[in-house]
Amino acid sequence: MLTKEEFVKGILDGNTTILARAITLVESRHQEHQALASDILNEVLPFTGNAQRIGISGIPGVGKSTFIESYGEFLIREKNRSIAILAIDPSSERTGGSILGDKTRMSKLSQNPKAFIRPSPSSGHLGGVAKKTRESLLLCEACGFDTIFIETVGVGQSETIVSQMVDFFILLLQPGAGDDLQGIKRGIMEVADLVCVNKCDGQNEHLSQIARHEYERALHILKKSEDFIPGVLEISALYEKGLDKVYEVMEHFFRDFHSLVKKRRSEGEVKWLKELFYQKIEGLILQDPKLSKLWSETNKQVAESQVSASYGSELLFSQVIEGLKGKK
Amino acid sequence: MLTKEEFVKGILDGNTTILARAITLVESRHQEHQALASDILNEVLPFTGNAQRIGISGIPGVGKSTFIESYGEFLIREKNRSIAILAIDPSSERTGGSILGDKTRMSKLSQNPKAFIRPSPSSGHLGGVAKKTRESLLLCEACGFDTIFIETVGVGQSETIVSQMVDFFILLLQPGAGDDLQGIKRGIMEVADLVCVNKCDGQNEHLSQIARHEYERALHILKKSEDFIPGVLEISALYEKGLDKVYEVMEHFFRDFHSLVKKRRSEGEVKWLKELFYQKIEGLILQDPKLSKLWSETNKQVAESQVSASYGSELLFSQVIEGLKGKK
Repeated sequence: MLTKEEFVKGILDGNTTILARAITLVESRHQEHQALASDILNEVLPFTGNAQRIGISGIPGVGKSTFIESYGEFLIREKNRSIAILAIDPSSERTGGSILGDKTRMSKLSQNPKAFIRPSPSSGHLGGVAKKTRESLLLCEACGFDTIFIETVGVGQSETIVSQMVDFFILLLQPGAGDDLQGIKRGIMEVADLVCVNKCDGQNEHLSQIARHEYERALHILKKSEDFIPGVLEISALYEKGLDKVYEVMEHFFRDFHSLVKKRRSEGEVKWLKELFYQKIEGLILQDPKLSKLWSETNKQVAESQVSASYGSELLFSQVIEGLKGKK
Repeated sequence: MLTKEEFVKGILDGNTTILARAITLVESRHQEHQALASDILNEVLPFTGNAQRIGISGIPGVGKSTFIESYGEFLIREKNRSIAILAIDPSSERTGGSILGDKTRMSKLSQNPKAFIRPSPSSGHLGGVAKKTRESLLLCEACGFDTIFIETVGVGQSETIVSQMVDFFILLLQPGAGDDLQGIKRGIMEVADLVCVNKCDGQNEHLSQIARHEYERALHILKKSEDFIPGVLEISALYEKGLDKVYEVMEHFFRDFHSLVKKRRSEGEVKWLKELFYQKIEGLILQDPKLSKLWSETNKQVAESQVSASYGSELLFSQVIEGLKGKK
């Protein structure tokens, strides 16, 4: 095992092998590893925050990996960028993980020395996965990557979490009205800063236009309470069509909306602070067999309307405080 | 002051004067009043849950009060309903409260013995206001009202909270594309079960149709992950146009989507349990001068990126646990 100093030096030197090992520490369930990861994070913190943090979402099959491969290559080749790719995939526990998936699906990028691909952590509840991804993001920034992509599947809940850790959110959709559109769950469209209608090539061109108009209307109705107005682009990741336009939009955003980026980061961090704090409180409850039992029983009783949430919370609160006081 | 028994009997007897006084207890900041309110709530709990809980939102000027007045009168007159009207208005602290507002704006309903109008609580943070409204809702149910309207202004955050305490959510919009549409913040459209385009009368009729088509498209894209499909109606609250259609949609919903109502209530309650529990933990922290100071300082430092959320939460957690243990 490397020492903390060796980890920190390696990361700040841009050593991606050491970066990968540090992320493994972040993902580890061993308390010892977690403590080391926390120390490393604190040391590198002053060197974080300089990347553009981009969230990417879309339902399976829309072409997320193709887009990241294609747009990532474009950014490295044309704009001299360096790119780290992380993923949040809360479903991976069920599907057996995407550990091999991400790298094989991005075969060109995974060979590129200016790209770092980290497959999604293989399991864990959403809150835990979010913590690991946030911390991995910081490590990637400290390692010198100037663009971080966080990929997520379009299931709703994970988008909200990702939107709290990125500066800019891209939603990938595909042309074709009707059933296709229905795949987008509420809660996703409204975090988007840019909608890319992918697969706008060949026979799809007419359908793409229709889709773009539909999404433009929807975005028009769902205005964010911010100055930046989300747009819709027709692209083809496979044929590298429209990537320059995606870049233009992003450049415009990061150039002219400094204070919005700052505000989003600041708000995201404060929410995250609270979330982490409550995760710890809950962790403490779940460690105690008696409190843990009370917690799940109360949840069940409230769900079945046997006791009111108000009464249940009184009970939980008094027992938890009692339990905490009794501890060394 | 009435005794607990007198309160409970009065409420279950349908005495609205006593109901109003019980709600005043719920809204009170005195600990003694709160304890009494909590006892009353526990006693009447078995007699709650039988009303249709309807959320109503829309930007100021869209005609929320006119709609509630008009639709409420319709329900009482044509359908023999009894209606309680509550409001969540987080802005009322700034605007000086709407204590007189609600009753004068609903002059006919406020004279109707089958209607009970409770103006919004005059102040407090959103979490506190939500608690009061939830508890007032239960009291109204125990008092025998079969339909509860909870009115809120279209500012985004309060809609999410209201959507967690109602069965069915109506969003009021007005015709006229362009600037008008822009008033709808993201996060509101996606909780709607029914969109009513209000003021569809006279010169507005053509614009109303356009608006309805736009909203239908937007709702089509933003499908909820549920079986019930939200619709759009053109109405005129002022001229009592389309109220029967609103009723049809609601009846269809409550008749054919039993299990969805049950699921929403159960999920809402469990979320609420957690929220209340954390409110109490936070209350404990804010009561302690040292912890309270640490809490606000850490929030500030995290917002300004001086410390990481991760480090901040560790610090807060250890200090809070330490502080709690030290107490009697």
